[in-house]
Amino acid sequence: MKDRKLLMIPGPIEFTPEVLRATGMPTTSHIAPNFIEVFAEALERMREVFLCPKGQPFVFAGSGTLAMDIAAANLTEPGNEALVVNTGYFSDRMGDILERYGATVTHVRAPTVGDAPSLDEVEAALKEGGYKVMAFTHVDTSTAVVVDAKGLSALGQEYGVLTVLDGVCSVAGEEMRQQEWGIDVAFTASQKAIGVPPGLALVVAGPRAVDAFHERKAPVGNYYADWTNWLPIMEAYGERRPSYFGTPAVNLIWALSVSLGQILDEGMEARFARHQRLNQAFKAAIAALRLSQVPVRSEVAATTLTAPYYPDDVDRSLLGHIKEAGVIVAGGLHAEIRDRYFRVGHMGAVSESDILATVGAIEQGLAQVGHGFEPGAGLAAAQEILTA
Amino acid sequence: MKDRKLLMIPGPIEFTPEVLRATGMPTTSHIAPNFIEVFAEALERMREVFLCPKGQPFVFAGSGTLAMDIAAANLTEPGNEALVVNTGYFSDRMGDILERYGATVTHVRAPTVGDAPSLDEVEAALKEGGYKVMAFTHVDTSTAVVVDAKGLSALGQEYGVLTVLDGVCSVAGEEMRQQEWGIDVAFTASQKAIGVPPGLALVVAGPRAVDAFHERKAPVGNYYADWTNWLPIMEAYGERRPSYFGTPAVNLIWALSVSLGQILDEGMEARFARHQRLNQAFKAAIAALRLSQVPVRSEVAATTLTAPYYPDDVDRSLLGHIKEAGVIVAGGLHAEIRDRYFRVGHMGAVSESDILATVGAIEQGLAQVGHGFEPGAGLAAAQEILTA
Repeated sequence: MKDRKLLMIPGPIEFTPEVLRATGMPTTSHIAPNFIEVFAEALERMREVFLCPKGQPFVFAGSGTLAMDIAAANLTEPGNEALVVNTGYFSDRMGDILERYGATVTHVRAPTVGDAPSLDEVEAALKEGGYKVMAFTHVDTSTAVVVDAKGLSALGQEYGVLTVLDGVCSVAGEEMRQQEWGIDVAFTASQKAIGVPPGLALVVAGPRAVDAFHERKAPVGNYYADWTNWLPIMEAYGERRPSYFGTPAVNLIWALSVSLGQILDEGMEARFARHQRLNQAFKAAIAALRLSQVPVRSEVAATTLTAPYYPDDVDRSLLGHIKEAGVIVAGGLHAEIRDRYFRVGHMGAVSESDILATVGAIEQGLAQVGHGFEPGAGLAAAQEILTA
Repeated sequence: MKDRKLLMIPGPIEFTPEVLRATGMPTTSHIAPNFIEVFAEALERMREVFLCPKGQPFVFAGSGTLAMDIAAANLTEPGNEALVVNTGYFSDRMGDILERYGATVTHVRAPTVGDAPSLDEVEAALKEGGYKVMAFTHVDTSTAVVVDAKGLSALGQEYGVLTVLDGVCSVAGEEMRQQEWGIDVAFTASQKAIGVPPGLALVVAGPRAVDAFHERKAPVGNYYADWTNWLPIMEAYGERRPSYFGTPAVNLIWALSVSLGQILDEGMEARFARHQRLNQAFKAAIAALRLSQVPVRSEVAATTLTAPYYPDDVDRSLLGHIKEAGVIVAGGLHAEIRDRYFRVGHMGAVSESDILATVGAIEQGLAQVGHGFEPGAGLAAAQEILTA
């Protein structure tokens, strides 16, 4: 038997062989002509994957939390007011970050874990006025809750508020059309649906965000994240000129260009459709296995991951049995329900085979812990959708 | 002929095949038991490579500039006074960063580019009193100037000031004994003598620095860099417990553990001696080729890189000829003299063969531009030291 387990957590995900080969290639200079070309390509491809042809892409060495930091630090100044559409762990974090840079933060919170605030509730808050920025977590990795990013962005535009989409668990998997929907800053991290080993924070700023940045009075609170330092660098690489502020993560950027190329070869519309189809298959399987999910209804359930509750009398030891059956899934993360649920990522290069293998391993795990279900019921439910 | 050029810039450097293989391995979960073990090993090995057995290591996804940011943001609060021993581009940057977090910064500047302030000048500044932090660039990558890190740290201890060593171009190459010398925070980036592709900021904080952090009143100005978030994570990985704040750069950390293992297999004393010997050979070659260097005397010349001036009437087109001869070296970086010199890194896994290949390529480049020298003189001067 192969020793290696299938990695089905919400990031890092399974990466393609081509991406891994690029990651491990001998490193060249960050100003070598072939690297400059690759970096320029990566920036162009980011615009296409974020569906933001007029956007300014930024690639930073760092994690997804740095991407959150970049958005908050560059858009807010002490005394600004910010609105957070709060759907869980990462929305809380975004609020903390905005406060760190001097913003006064108002949260519009979901009524319960697994739900999202309604557009009406958000609009009511926006009507109060005074907000410079509105941030929302497109897909909260802690709960698998998705928000209506299109509707929220439209509200942001209507009320003249800069919109920030935390797309860490969404970009290149969940449908997201930055420019068309009017999202001023969108960001993600490399190890999610973008399909590159962890270590890159990826940000695309639309024209309104760049203008707002140029109009700020106070220096950016975070030196490393400061677009003052990086905007000229990203512009230079975009124009295929050598430039230096800090050493870019050469190998990861090479891998990024490869992965973005693969994403665009598939095509964004086909990619969204594949993610939706595989998600439907997986969620049908989870339902057939008689597991409920953290998202309280299908409208707020993400495409890129699923968060099933454990059956009654089952604890996280289930995850060990699933792993023994060959698949690594993730435990709970949201503090209120941490020990009651688990998380399965299905994004990026994920295939039909991966979905079936994961459903199969979950069935085997459930059988080990004595959960009552019909063996094969999950696989059959998934297969019904995959063969439709 | 092989197409690939030898990379002899001051980072990224040439990495070992084992490190590159680890970099490109299929990624596992950041809380998988085998990754936790590797991360714990990397942290232990950082203590050994920094020669700081009582230190608290931190591994961040980010560049060397983030490492500077981490040191400055966590140690300073608005209103603190900081002293910067200034030897060039990166000392200027450290001053900027300290100011960003609210410190009032005094620079003790070198009298001229290529020199370092004397210990007496630094002591005179310290006697004025009031400094919380003293920062110095161990090796300034822009000028190849090294400071007396041992002497400066002793002064810092004597005057009760926290010492911060920017070891981006020094750690694991230049002699640096963090604990014995009394350096409170030392940091580097992965792509330098540590020998890992770019994308990791590596910091080791001694007990006085951690205490000072715990005693601070104001929140850390930079959210991503904040040890409040990361100290529990680094402690957890150190104790081989799963933990999460932001997703660690799994592949690069795996490569880090491999590289640190190779460094410790060589042994720190042997490694310092090898770097000194190869440096002597290279600098002897540069002198034999009748090129002067940016550092004004040998006491302030780094071990990890060399910054030769171009001969009269030669410009940076020399670098193209050197590259054609198979070796990539770097252009100037210090604003005052940028177009008058170049830089050669010789650190990490660098071998005798690499030194000779580099000297040979420089000779070929010099011949192309019509510089008067005896062909082979550089190689002979290097070889004399390598065979001694």
